[in-house]
This record gives sequence, structure tokens and C-alpha cells, in this order.
Amino acid sequence: MDDGKKILVIIMDGLGDRAVRSLGYRTPLQCANKPNLDWFAVNGTSGIMDVISPGVRPGSDTSHLALLGYDPYQVYTGRGPFEAAGVGLVGKAGDVAFRCNFATVDDGMNVIDRRAGRIKEPDTTELAKALDGMRLGDITAVVKEATEHRAALMLQGSGLSPYVSDADPHALATVSRSEPLRPNAAATAEAVNEFVHRSYEVLKDHPVNRRRIAEGKQPANILLPRGAGVFPDIQPFESKYGMSASGVAGVSLIRGICRVCGLEVIEDAGCTGGTDTDMNAKACAALRELERKDFVLMNVKATDINSHDGDPRSKIESIERLDAMAKAIREGIPSGTVVALAADHCTPVEKGDHSGDPVPLTIYVENGIKDGVASYDEVSCARGALGRIRGVDLMPILIDKADRSEKFGA
Amino acid sequence: MDDGKKILVIIMDGLGDRAVRSLGYRTPLQCANKPNLDWFAVNGTSGIMDVISPGVRPGSDTSHLALLGYDPYQVYTGRGPFEAAGVGLVGKAGDVAFRCNFATVDDGMNVIDRRAGRIKEPDTTELAKALDGMRLGDITAVVKEATEHRAALMLQGSGLSPYVSDADPHALATVSRSEPLRPNAAATAEAVNEFVHRSYEVLKDHPVNRRRIAEGKQPANILLPRGAGVFPDIQPFESKYGMSASGVAGVSLIRGICRVCGLEVIEDAGCTGGTDTDMNAKACAALRELERKDFVLMNVKATDINSHDGDPRSKIESIERLDAMAKAIREGIPSGTVVALAADHCTPVEKGDHSGDPVPLTIYVENGIKDGVASYDEVSCARGALGRIRGVDLMPILIDKADRSEKFGA
Repeated sequence: MDDGKKILVIIMDGLGDRAVRSLGYRTPLQCANKPNLDWFAVNGTSGIMDVISPGVRPGSDTSHLALLGYDPYQVYTGRGPFEAAGVGLVGKAGDVAFRCNFATVDDGMNVIDRRAGRIKEPDTTELAKALDGMRLGDITAVVKEATEHRAALMLQGSGLSPYVSDADPHALATVSRSEPLRPNAAATAEAVNEFVHRSYEVLKDHPVNRRRIAEGKQPANILLPRGAGVFPDIQPFESKYGMSASGVAGVSLIRGICRVCGLEVIEDAGCTGGTDTDMNAKACAALRELERKDFVLMNVKATDINSHDGDPRSKIESIERLDAMAKAIREGIPSGTVVALAADHCTPVEKGDHSGDPVPLTIYVENGIKDGVASYDEVSCARGALGRIRGVDLMPILIDKADRSEKFGA
Repeated sequence: MDDGKKILVIIMDGLGDRAVRSLGYRTPLQCANKPNLDWFAVNGTSGIMDVISPGVRPGSDTSHLALLGYDPYQVYTGRGPFEAAGVGLVGKAGDVAFRCNFATVDDGMNVIDRRAGRIKEPDTTELAKALDGMRLGDITAVVKEATEHRAALMLQGSGLSPYVSDADPHALATVSRSEPLRPNAAATAEAVNEFVHRSYEVLKDHPVNRRRIAEGKQPANILLPRGAGVFPDIQPFESKYGMSASGVAGVSLIRGICRVCGLEVIEDAGCTGGTDTDMNAKACAALRELERKDFVLMNVKATDINSHDGDPRSKIESIERLDAMAKAIREGIPSGTVVALAADHCTPVEKGDHSGDPVPLTIYVENGIKDGVASYDEVSCARGALGRIRGVDLMPILIDKADRSEKFGA
């Protein structure tokens, strides 16, 4: 046996769909002109995949965990740690992270603007720095700004619990007290409340806010945490699978998932190939990473956005741009690479949100059995020789097709 | 409900394959002329089966356990007990068994020949007898010769653990000390070390070895255990399923699996039908057993050997001989029998070793639904009405098709 083949997993976000009335009850994939995606189907082995389990509607975080072979029911307690890792705060197992908003409150702790006058960098950068490193008894608060009015908070210390309610009231209302949702979460809830109170003390007279008030803008005088989650005790990808790995993704949450799982995240997906679209840049970056790594995951977001916007025609156009990306992959992959075309979930355009429908899956490798599937779409793939599998089974299947699997027994 | 139908499971070892370049990217099954195997597909219901779970690369031992309905993750700790049972040493739950080599060591306990000059029966028979029944404190060692220079060791007593390292250094090196791999395994490791030491004391001046030395041959002056495994606490097949059962297999390891699960192993698969191949002998033996038993498992090895040899043409020829065997089965089975055609794992000829790909499966019974599958192969079966199932689900499905299943609920 050789050292095993390389593996490229292409996740086309929200790609799968349902029968769309305005498309004659076909799906966007069935309507798009996509000879290169279809080339993989013709030469590969296809099936459908319940990314979590049948009928379960995945988030982008739980789905990517499953696709990387981590059971989300075991490792996922909330979005917080993955958002935090997305902006670069990667904690250790047991650290608890929160998503936060910079907000504006009055003297009575009533929220009067949940986005603090749509504050953004560089103001948030300075304000986050003012809060970062705050000591709350034995607990340390780590704070980092995220996009626009958002930030990440990570609590580090022993005995922390993610089972605390949000301080963010999610409305123009009085700031909520974080309450323990389990008996052993009292200390964590208290730390959250102290953090929120002291964020007000630190921020209310901060020079950045004094300047904003002078400019007639809302001050960001409080940081409101929500969505607590604990960093899971996760076996790093490289030690779990014995493969070096990179993740190519533009979305912060997906980058966070990759970082928590131990993949190297490629920040700059720039491309020297002369094309200027985001997709082709990602394809180039993925091909570059395949030169030096065993495993590459890439996530391409456009189709999900089209679906959230409810626009089937734009989704078809995005699929046709994905097809151009698939051409670059097809022409550029090292010989013998195992390539998986998949989605993290369906996002039906008429629903405008994720659904629990299975996603189309094609696995291409030169010696894979050819199953007669001629098109990469929801219906054609369902007739393929992979049948119907689950997301957590994808990695074992790819590893076996790459001739990297351990034998169980003799 | 009547008493239920009879069940015949035919395991064609290593049968499944991948797309073979020299066969125009088809599999050996897709290339072979096999009208009788196809008859079962045409008249039966087909699917694909992950013998362990998707992408997991099965050994022949773990796979046969799963196919008999025993979860290998619960009952398998190593090959030792099944090898021991293969040569007739069937222990009770908790007994720990090892595979062993008769080897040659010098005075310094350095292995100078791992096969003791390719010793075999009847020398090994006598030497095994000299070690059999050795008392090691409260523990008894049971020893039996196997093929060529091999033997099986079974330790019987209370509180034994399979979590001990090998005394066999697996190289021309000093004999290893068996070490406990878990805290409660110290007594077992000590018993192994004492056994190895005393095997040297008993064997070094044994008349067989004195004679071998006089003849210029290497003496088998030590027995080196490896691959510890515990006899599982397994519910015997007959009480688990309420069916009498026989196993027809030529390979010692498979015979061992059958014995540990409580099947009667048919040693002499001779056939009076006038054909002289091993396969037809096994078909005759299986048909004979079906006369007096409810369930028969047969294993036919040839295709796996062709694959390990990397020879697609020989594999096609073996499949065509399997087809002749299928003809004998088809013509000889009692009316109403449920027949399953399956493999224990794929062994792709280009890989030369087991893979985790799903195996083709056809279940034939007169009243089974006909799904339009016309060929018994990896691609055609994947389109069948059984879909994609797991190995541990095969027995419940067969039992139900045999009208022997219990109702769950009212």
C-alpha cells in the first residue's frame, strides 16, 4: 500500500433544493448548464447524504462538523466557540465563548440601539482592546471584534459551563441577567453578569465613545453576550486521521469550525490564474493547498445566499459559475486525488432557509465504480451507487477510497 | 405462521471490487459470465451492504461476526480466540487466546528463526502436547498446534485480560516481555511471560528438538504468543435465533468464528456429486446441511486470493467457477429457502488488500419483490430495492424473510 491519495472536499453551501414551481417543478441544479459538475458525476459514484440525519435541518456549523467526521451531537453545544474561532479566538477544551453585540444602553440599562449606531472597525477594535484581558475573579475574559457591531467573548478558567442564559435581551428592553440553566453554571452566569456590568463601566467614558457622541453617533457603551458554547474536547483532524489539512472558506463561522477541528485556514484565497471571481480564487487556493497538504476542504457560499434571497434564477447563475470552478478543479487536481462534491445542507429558494432534505453527493476517484449517473443533481444522484449515507460517514468513505483506512480485524 | 423457511448465506470472500483500469474501468464481477449468479439477482432483491459501517475496512473475522449478527465492536478484542477456535480450542467467555509461533532462540533469548526451520506437523503436535496443560499459578495454559509453525495458546482462569502486549518481537530480536496495557492486565502479562520462559525450559531438550538438531534442523525451542483476544460472552447462535446452524468453510479463521458463535463446523466438505472442485464440494456440503439444519453459512475463498495476488483475469475465472457453484445451489435448494449472496468485504485487485467499499448483496426467496436488477455486481445491486444496509442488519432481514421474526409490539 502506498501513502494514500489526497482528498478534496468541495462544499457548495445551500446547493440542494426542492421542486421550484417557477422552474416547472425542477430544482435549480436540474435547470443549470453545468457540464463540469456533470463530468464528475459521469466519471464518479453518486448518492445522497443526510448531513446530520434524515429530516434534520442542519446549521452551517453542525453540518461542517459532521462532514469533517465529528458527531455534532457530541461536540456542538452552541455557535459561540465557532464564531469566536472564526475571528481568531481558538480556546482550549472547556473555555466558554459567546457571540456579542456592541450596543447602546441608557442609565437604566435599557437597550436603546442593539447595534450601537451600526458601529464597526476601527472603533470596535479599540473598544474590544479596552475589554480584552479583564479579570473576573479566577476567570479571564478574552474579547475580539468581529464584523460590523459584533464581537466574540471567550471566558477562560476552570469549571466554566455553557449552560447560561443570554445577557442580550434580543430586543429594545432592559439588559437581561444571565441565569444558570444547570446547577453547576452559577459561577459562569455570575462572571457574565460581572463582565456586562464592567463593560459598561469601561466603555461609557471611553474616548472612542466620547468622540462618537460628539459626532452625534450612538456610543457603544456595553457588550452583550449571547449564544454561549463550550470549546469541545475535539481530537485534532491531523491526529484523528493522520492527514495534514487546510480549509479554504470565506465565511467566518466555517473558518471557525475548521480552526477548532485543527485545520489550517487559508485567509488569503487570492488567485494568480487571471480570473477574478471569488469562486475561482478559492479553486486556485484549494489546488495550491493540495500540493502541500493531504486534505483540503473548500466552502463556496454563493448558492446559499441566492436561496436566502429567494431567487431561483440567480441560484442557477451561481451554479453555472460553480461549474466554471469545477472545470478549474477538474483540470488542476493532482492525478489520483479523491474529490467529493457535496453541500452542507439544502436551502430551497422558495423556503429561503435551510431544509433537512438530503444533499446530492458525488465522489470521484479514477478507480471508483461508474454508476451511470449522468448529472449532478438531487434526483440523478439519488439513483447512484452510493445510495443514501450520513454526513459523519463521508470522512470514513473518503479515507477508504484514498487507501488510508485502517483494517478493523484480521 | 409456519415453522419458518431455511436460510443459506453464501459469502464469496473478497468478491467486491473497484473499477479496474485493465478491464476498461469495470469490475471483475461486471466482466464475468455468470448466468446463475445473475439468476438470483433477476429473481431476487438486491442492494449494497457496509459489512461493518461505511468506509470501514473489515477483516475476515470482524466481517463474519457482523454477518452472523454479532456487533464486532462489542465482541471482538483480537484475532486470538477465533484462530484458537479454528484449530479446535473453543474457550469460555473470559478465556484469553493468542496466536503463537514455534521459534528458535539462542541462549540469550534472541530469536534466530521465527519459524523454527519451517517446522510443521507431526513435530509441532508433539511439542504442543508437551506444553498443553501447563499450570501458571491459578491459570492453566492450553496449547494446540496449527498449520506449519503456528500454534494457539489459550489461558484459562479468572480475572484474565486481553490487554497485554506481544511476547513475539515480530523480528529477529530479543524475546519481548509481555506488558500490561491496562492496569488490571498485570497478572495476565506475568502469566504470558512465565509461559514463554517455561516453554523454553520444556522445549529446549525435548526429544523432538534433539532429533531436529541432530538432523541439522533448527529446534523449536520456544513458543511466542501474540494477538491476545478474549473469548467474548456471546449468545450462541441457536439460542439467539432459535435456529440450528452449520458453517461450511475451509479457512481456519472462519471456522473459528463459526465455532465461537456456536455453529457446527463441517470439516469434511467432500461431495459425492461427481464434481471435484472445492467450490462444488462446498455447495454439496451446504445443501446436505440444509436438509438437517435451519441455517447454513458457507464461505468460499478463491476470489479473495486472486485479489491479494492482484490478478483480475484469475478473479474473473474464479467468479465463473462461483457461478457453476451457484447453479448447483439454485438446482439443489429446498423449495422456499432464503438465499443470500454476499461478500465479507471487497478486495480490489489493484489494491491487493481489503477495502471498505460496500459489497453487492442479493437476497433470493420465492416471494421476494423483484426489483429489475439483472446482474449481480457492485453497480447493478446498488440500484436494487434493498438500498444500502449494514452487515449486522443482514440476519434480522433474513430471519424476517424466512418468516421467523418476532413481532415488536402488538
